[in-house]
Amino acid sequence: MKIDVLSLFPEMFEGVFGSSILKKAAEKQAVSYKVTNFRDYADNKHSTVDDYPYGGGAGMVLKAQPIFDAVEALKGQAEQNPRVVLLCPQGERYSQKKAEELAKEEHLIFICGHYEGYDERIREHVVTDEISIGDFVLTGGELGAMVIIDSVVRLLPGVLGNVDSPILDSYSSGLLEHPHYTRPADFRGMKVPDPLISGNHKKIDEWRMKESLRRTWMRRPDLLEIYELTEIEKKLLSEIQKED
Amino acid sequence: MKIDVLSLFPEMFEGVFGSSILKKAAEKQAVSYKVTNFRDYADNKHSTVDDYPYGGGAGMVLKAQPIFDAVEALKGQAEQNPRVVLLCPQGERYSQKKAEELAKEEHLIFICGHYEGYDERIREHVVTDEISIGDFVLTGGELGAMVIIDSVVRLLPGVLGNVDSPILDSYSSGLLEHPHYTRPADFRGMKVPDPLISGNHKKIDEWRMKESLRRTWMRRPDLLEIYELTEIEKKLLSEIQKED
Repeated sequence: MKIDVLSLFPEMFEGVFGSSILKKAAEKQAVSYKVTNFRDYADNKHSTVDDYPYGGGAGMVLKAQPIFDAVEALKGQAEQNPRVVLLCPQGERYSQKKAEELAKEEHLIFICGHYEGYDERIREHVVTDEISIGDFVLTGGELGAMVIIDSVVRLLPGVLGNVDSPILDSYSSGLLEHPHYTRPADFRGMKVPDPLISGNHKKIDEWRMKESLRRTWMRRPDLLEIYELTEIEKKLLSEIQKED
Repeated sequence: MKIDVLSLFPEMFEGVFGSSILKKAAEKQAVSYKVTNFRDYADNKHSTVDDYPYGGGAGMVLKAQPIFDAVEALKGQAEQNPRVVLLCPQGERYSQKKAEELAKEEHLIFICGHYEGYDERIREHVVTDEISIGDFVLTGGELGAMVIIDSVVRLLPGVLGNVDSPILDSYSSGLLEHPHYTRPADFRGMKVPDPLISGNHKKIDEWRMKESLRRTWMRRPDLLEIYELTEIEKKLLSEIQKED
């Protein structure tokens, strides 16, 4: 997969692309990253990339021209039509399902604005996907792009070895993960629950299933509404509801 | 505000803390950042920070000891009791309201795991807030910490000047932003809508209000359910519903 990022702050990406799984994925040639400062594409003598909004008002708006030209240049180098992702608060809410969808592509281009709005013609004619990572205000699109890139690249074939396989993969089962413990069994008087050190696999499995249900029920009851409980899960959940 | 981060990949933060608003905020002394590799606190000779889970299973679990000791050391240097934030998929969903809450604190500590689970005793005895930035799987907590830090720091007094005031602040009004346009009025045949270049402020305001409602109605109808429409907004919304 080829990943292009358009940003006015290319240095923001260095530490993230140069560490951990994203670095390993590039070393394994599962992905290549390129960050382009779209100011380099501004066709005016001051390399201006933003301007005042038509109709007045506070703030600045990213001009269409530098983004159009930068995306066209990046497309020209690729064989396939890329997905062009705009990070913005008005976009569709990002989800694991979207990560899986993007992971099937060969070329992704991310457009990251910073403080500014985007000229609407960018949305209408260049962008294929508008994405928001959540209902909170960020300074720019860069962190959202990094989040999407991390979640997509880890899904590419060959990127995650067994060593890196995520224990935290809460969304694949449909329930939140049960608690985990590791040695020592007694840390400053805080003990590991008995079933986990019993050596009895039936007890361990039942404890884990119950605590997974308890955590989901307490923290994310919305997940239980769409989850199909087995008979034993139904019994455990009713025990939990009596206990609390 | 003092911000501490515990991570096994401190270099991931360099580009982000060293750019844009986060950099400016530190220069203005509104905030200071320190990233600590908690491997430095491991009290075993191989500096191990994780171990196999009790009860068996795939994946590794972060040990309690290095995290307990690192957080205690960071707390010791501060005057107040810090908020200790754990990034994890099971946490409360991050929101602008939470950003505003955290922005009132004097000291925040972020614990970032990487691939691994956390020993439950960390959650129970060290952590004050478990936060998830969304329903997608990331390689570690680092990107989530950066997202929270960016959204919090920009709220600190004196950090955002007028120049940086966000045009994209979609969540403060309760509706999504209307489209923006800047020069040229005709870009490769794509034109700015007439009302915006009419010079008539009543027309401009009405166009913006209507397009803001249209975008919210099409993309985030959930926001309209909790938004109190004025009489003119009701009229515009019914026009939109007839048009589409």
